[in-house]
Amino acid sequence: MRVSVPRSANLPPTLRQLLSNPPTTQPAATSTTVQGWIKSIRAHKNVAFIEVSDGTTSDTLQAVLKGKGKDSGSPSLASSVEGLNVGTSIKINGRLQTSRGAGQACELLVDDLTVLGACDSSYPIQKKHLPPDVLRDHAHLRFRTSQIASTVRLRDTMMREWHDYFEDADYTFIHTPILTSSDCEGAGETFRVTTDPLPRLPTPPAGRESSSPAPHPTFFPNPAYLTVSSQLHLEAPTHAVSRTYTLSPTFRAEPSATSRHLAEFYMLEAEVAFVETLDELMSTVEDGIRGVLNGLLRGEKRRGARARDDLRIVESSLRQDREEKRSKEDVPMSVMVVEDIDPIDRLRQFADRSFVRITYTEAVTILQQQHDVRPFEHVPEWGASLQTEHEKYLAGEKFGAPVFVTNYPQSLKPFYMRLNDEGNSTTPSPTVACFDLLVPGIGELVGGSLREERLLLLERAIEHAGLEKKSYDWYLDLRRYGSVKHGGWGMGWERFVCWVTGVGNIRDVVAFPRWKGNCRY
Amino acid sequence: MRVSVPRSANLPPTLRQLLSNPPTTQPAATSTTVQGWIKSIRAHKNVAFIEVSDGTTSDTLQAVLKGKGKDSGSPSLASSVEGLNVGTSIKINGRLQTSRGAGQACELLVDDLTVLGACDSSYPIQKKHLPPDVLRDHAHLRFRTSQIASTVRLRDTMMREWHDYFEDADYTFIHTPILTSSDCEGAGETFRVTTDPLPRLPTPPAGRESSSPAPHPTFFPNPAYLTVSSQLHLEAPTHAVSRTYTLSPTFRAEPSATSRHLAEFYMLEAEVAFVETLDELMSTVEDGIRGVLNGLLRGEKRRGARARDDLRIVESSLRQDREEKRSKEDVPMSVMVVEDIDPIDRLRQFADRSFVRITYTEAVTILQQQHDVRPFEHVPEWGASLQTEHEKYLAGEKFGAPVFVTNYPQSLKPFYMRLNDEGNSTTPSPTVACFDLLVPGIGELVGGSLREERLLLLERAIEHAGLEKKSYDWYLDLRRYGSVKHGGWGMGWERFVCWVTGVGNIRDVVAFPRWKGNCRY
Repeated sequence: MRVSVPRSANLPPTLRQLLSNPPTTQPAATSTTVQGWIKSIRAHKNVAFIEVSDGTTSDTLQAVLKGKGKDSGSPSLASSVEGLNVGTSIKINGRLQTSRGAGQACELLVDDLTVLGACDSSYPIQKKHLPPDVLRDHAHLRFRTSQIASTVRLRDTMMREWHDYFEDADYTFIHTPILTSSDCEGAGETFRVTTDPLPRLPTPPAGRESSSPAPHPTFFPNPAYLTVSSQLHLEAPTHAVSRTYTLSPTFRAEPSATSRHLAEFYMLEAEVAFVETLDELMSTVEDGIRGVLNGLLRGEKRRGARARDDLRIVESSLRQDREEKRSKEDVPMSVMVVEDIDPIDRLRQFADRSFVRITYTEAVTILQQQHDVRPFEHVPEWGASLQTEHEKYLAGEKFGAPVFVTNYPQSLKPFYMRLNDEGNSTTPSPTVACFDLLVPGIGELVGGSLREERLLLLERAIEHAGLEKKSYDWYLDLRRYGSVKHGGWGMGWERFVCWVTGVGNIRDVVAFPRWKGNCRY
Repeated sequence: MRVSVPRSANLPPTLRQLLSNPPTTQPAATSTTVQGWIKSIRAHKNVAFIEVSDGTTSDTLQAVLKGKGKDSGSPSLASSVEGLNVGTSIKINGRLQTSRGAGQACELLVDDLTVLGACDSSYPIQKKHLPPDVLRDHAHLRFRTSQIASTVRLRDTMMREWHDYFEDADYTFIHTPILTSSDCEGAGETFRVTTDPLPRLPTPPAGRESSSPAPHPTFFPNPAYLTVSSQLHLEAPTHAVSRTYTLSPTFRAEPSATSRHLAEFYMLEAEVAFVETLDELMSTVEDGIRGVLNGLLRGEKRRGARARDDLRIVESSLRQDREEKRSKEDVPMSVMVVEDIDPIDRLRQFADRSFVRITYTEAVTILQQQHDVRPFEHVPEWGASLQTEHEKYLAGEKFGAPVFVTNYPQSLKPFYMRLNDEGNSTTPSPTVACFDLLVPGIGELVGGSLREERLLLLERAIEHAGLEKKSYDWYLDLRRYGSVKHGGWGMGWERFVCWVTGVGNIRDVVAFPRWKGNCRY
């Protein structure tokens, strides 16, 4: 792809780099230095095994520390391992050799060992498996567990795969604004941004007269909010460079603190000009998702093999969570179904097969048939939103595959979605050219639509939605000057990471999650 | 790098894709469809030339529309080009052939042409060159000018080069939080985030008693702010995966509305564990910058050649701005120096040579010597901050190269920077192991330091800075458990884009810029 330039030649090799070039002689002819943190330690009488990680790979290195004879003048093994605990950072020199132990490619015969930073027994991240809620209370330290480190690396890798997908298809990445004076959806709980001082306590201080504080000069002339979606802003450059995308933070002051919602989350959003049909648009989404999955499942060493190792580590940790929960709650095995499916097999079925495509109207019919057999909590009705239970049923039990549900009633969707031609339609009320992509285990993963490119219909939709036309004047300009058929979509990034990794709680795929009542750190 | 999967096979080829596969027969045997916007149109009696762009490349396609004989039954040329204006979106079918005109690789012999979206004469983006302040007033439409489209593509390409640099060196990308309860620098104007309703006007409505509004339940238990830097948050995962980075939005309620400041801007920030010396850390920065520049200057077609074309387009537009400004203000050529230097040559000098490294103390001495010859506005003194005029002198007139200035007085820098050993020091007061990277034309581009990894010294620095130790307890934990020497740096992303492109105003390298008094869109 580009000219090879020596990169970071000055930094010592990482563990990933060292392990990807195993020694050719046994042990290696030259000495190697490794720095990292101790993951575990087993000290015997004459030999100690120290498992070291630097987090650049899920592989750890086994350092072998041998005792010296009493008369050698060297310190005894016992004194060498004193003060070495899980979490201690160390620097070791020695010679690499191919390991005879199972599961490890290499081990290091230690010549000398230096403690960089001690770690006493108050360290909360011990070798023992910790449940996710305990780890959440130590968000700043939980990166040091194998499962969270793997999740972090996977999130990184997925981002790179998407960047490659978009580059290959000539999309331009745009940094859309976070501060905005408009509210994309015309709804939703938004955060407001201010430079006003914190409101004072109502009690006036003793000896002072109570008086209103002097009005603070506002930073922006209009109220400013945190963006809830980059879409409208992304449409503007799309009318110049044809294909755009962003991976940008979005915010909702969502009062429900569930495993599916965050106050701050990332959205992967794309817009494409000259897309004429919803099917074309859905194919870009399907191509993207299946391409990224294939990158993880079939990519080579650098990304692919590491990703597969990481997927297996996350899965093994989730299995342990499930088992511990079951044993604590004393649930018999038969009641709580534990899906022990290899994560690679689980993803391969999505990567290999076409996604299902049905209309909203067909979906409602399917749900009503099922409702007669085994009632849902919410009755499925034409004109009503699909509930999470409906979405999970369609993508799970019914199709067992990602499902695009298309052409929802206009009344359920935001103003900018393209109105379908009513000519051949048999639906009770007008529909729009949109889709939700539902995936097994998650429900809604992506939402997208053709955008209304016809000026008059868009103006009418804005009025109909009770929005102020003046605020959308710039957006209408895109239809006044060289309007083109176009469409786009948005994917909850954390939901995608959850879906791929199998992690059940969105708070566990974000470095420092924020939700109602929590903005620690 | 990864398994090749057919990507977006469903989307029609972009102009970039079409032009990178020129036809082998003249004209091409098969028909081609192109969709885009008209950049210019020249209609003669029997032939019209329409320049079309879809923004996926800076290259435009010349569409050649020929008149038909009167008896052919086809519409006349005059009626075919009616309603075609700059900005009109069109779809054309025809056969590609190698162009005989200069500067264009291909042209399209049009068989048929469809108008997708009209564009009347009120369109503000005509072919005429527009000054940057006029374009800023049309931020939603300015992407359609060649200069802004090129800037947008360059920003995208630079991002990809940096992502590759970091991936090659085993860094993990982290989405650090935007909402935060801590203020990294312990200073600076921050934006506060709230779900409180907008403050009411002081006058109570008639017929109602004036009463305090009911207290609004707060969304977060503590005041929440928009982040000013991701650094502290980035240090946490660095103590697990060794090398991390982010390209994340940061916010300052900066009251000065200059060409160098924005209220919302991106920072490229990196942290590296096991870095022992400032020189090592600076080498990572230098490697990164020179590697990215080399990618742009020497990379192949997909990124490199396109980037070089875009650099030249931006430069040519800047030259026009300078010339128009000069002619308007009637400044004689000799007074206003216009640097007409090829942007590729300008960047090559930075990519090819090592950056200068001097200490703050040396910098002050150099500045004082210069001050004796030609006084600065601010007297350079040991212990005082370097001013922009000083920084520009060092990187410009003095060295004409990027300059690392290292080891500033501790009193000038934030608490987390590593205190230098005072043993061999001859400076008047303690210094810290930090650097600012100054670049020609911009001044400060990157700031970085070794981070204080010693618990006691860090605690002392927090107290000394008058900060509440309790708020930094999690940050101190990183030093309590397996602390390692580490360092990091932050680069103003827009400043980097300005430096590489030569654009003088930071507002012109951001899609929708925000500054004091402006949050339009």
